[in-house]
Amino acid sequence: MHSFVSSQMSRPFFTWQQILDWAQEHYRFRTFKKDERIPARPELLYLVQRGAVRLVGREQPLKKMQSKSQAQASNNNGEEAFLGFVGAGQPFEIVGHSPFTIQAYAHVDETNIVWMYWQDLDNWPHFRREILEAFRYQHQRKLLWLATLGQRRTIDRLMGFLGLLIEEYGEPCEPIGLAGERAYRLPWSLTHAQIGSAIGSTRVTVTRLMGKLRSQGLIYTLDDHLICLPVFQSLKFKI
Amino acid sequence: MHSFVSSQMSRPFFTWQQILDWAQEHYRFRTFKKDERIPARPELLYLVQRGAVRLVGREQPLKKMQSKSQAQASNNNGEEAFLGFVGAGQPFEIVGHSPFTIQAYAHVDETNIVWMYWQDLDNWPHFRREILEAFRYQHQRKLLWLATLGQRRTIDRLMGFLGLLIEEYGEPCEPIGLAGERAYRLPWSLTHAQIGSAIGSTRVTVTRLMGKLRSQGLIYTLDDHLICLPVFQSLKFKI
Repeated sequence: MHSFVSSQMSRPFFTWQQILDWAQEHYRFRTFKKDERIPARPELLYLVQRGAVRLVGREQPLKKMQSKSQAQASNNNGEEAFLGFVGAGQPFEIVGHSPFTIQAYAHVDETNIVWMYWQDLDNWPHFRREILEAFRYQHQRKLLWLATLGQRRTIDRLMGFLGLLIEEYGEPCEPIGLAGERAYRLPWSLTHAQIGSAIGSTRVTVTRLMGKLRSQGLIYTLDDHLICLPVFQSLKFKI
Repeated sequence: MHSFVSSQMSRPFFTWQQILDWAQEHYRFRTFKKDERIPARPELLYLVQRGAVRLVGREQPLKKMQSKSQAQASNNNGEEAFLGFVGAGQPFEIVGHSPFTIQAYAHVDETNIVWMYWQDLDNWPHFRREILEAFRYQHQRKLLWLATLGQRRTIDRLMGFLGLLIEEYGEPCEPIGLAGERAYRLPWSLTHAQIGSAIGSTRVTVTRLMGKLRSQGLIYTLDDHLICLPVFQSLKFKI
């Protein structure tokens, strides 16, 4: 897994602690509750210190210009797309842009966020470079995600999507199945509606396909409702 | 439009020329023909000096382990997803990773590519920072793209996809329609199969939906077969 937290082993922990101290001193630190919106502004840079952030894309009221009632109906449907997680130690930014706005929500309770202007990083040039490297990495992950979403069959998109998430964020979990294969689970829950919004499908279809994958033993759901993949599903776990 | 080429106005043209000279001197410069594959390796960084590059994602033969004939059938279908363009002045890199490999092709004739190791950029620290900023920008664009692909209706994904491409790469073209609206066109051609591979649909469906959008006046195709959008389709053109 790639994250600042794990890469801290190889670089001074000192910088991250300095930034935290600086953030608390300058009131640039806040704790968010699950599903609370993080009021992110385009010119700022955000760091997840603990917890996880969910990025979503929402259509801007472009259609309102054409038909107000239609747009309202579409708003009521909550047409927002799940765009991925930002884990602890990772940066994110929100560059609002038509026809979509991107928004950030705390995905779990006690998600700690630090924010700063880009120029604040002038104090920590090495850290600035790491942030940019992290975006470079995130960009590569999104290319893989786009490759998955290009597949025609919804079940392929679903399986590819789950595989990519677990490859990036998966944690080892209880061995499962008769053969006792090793497995990795996504540490956060995702609703079927959220999954559907990411892969261009509906909650109903996702529920049906998840059942199908489960019956084929390609995914598992444990008592905690977290999605779990046997290790043979992913050829190369970087973990 | 964001590109190194246009941002060169504000920074010394000198660096880019230095890099070109260096690349030619060290045989790190090559011209590619349309649809020629650029043999990109993970540890290298690539710059498009002229022309345009098409990134595609291709499924790795994961399924071959399960069924050889099935995998061959799927390979014959040419299941590759269009992941976007890299225009002149922009960098790209290919981090191969299961279950997809990402590949780069020259999208037009006389596409010039410069390549280097990341450490070669130590000579041009300012340029290195610009490269990382470019990836930061590309990452933001991909988030918008993912937001578009999260939409359930194929026609919405198609329209969003075209809008994003033209917003980023569009060039002004002849006024069209009775009202003589201003319009922007994508400077490169894209087949319906390529569009389908990007939005999780088929060539046949894309052809049908493009016809529908055309008949509604939401898109135009000029004599040169390039896709053209009237300006009112995008609320905020950055151009």
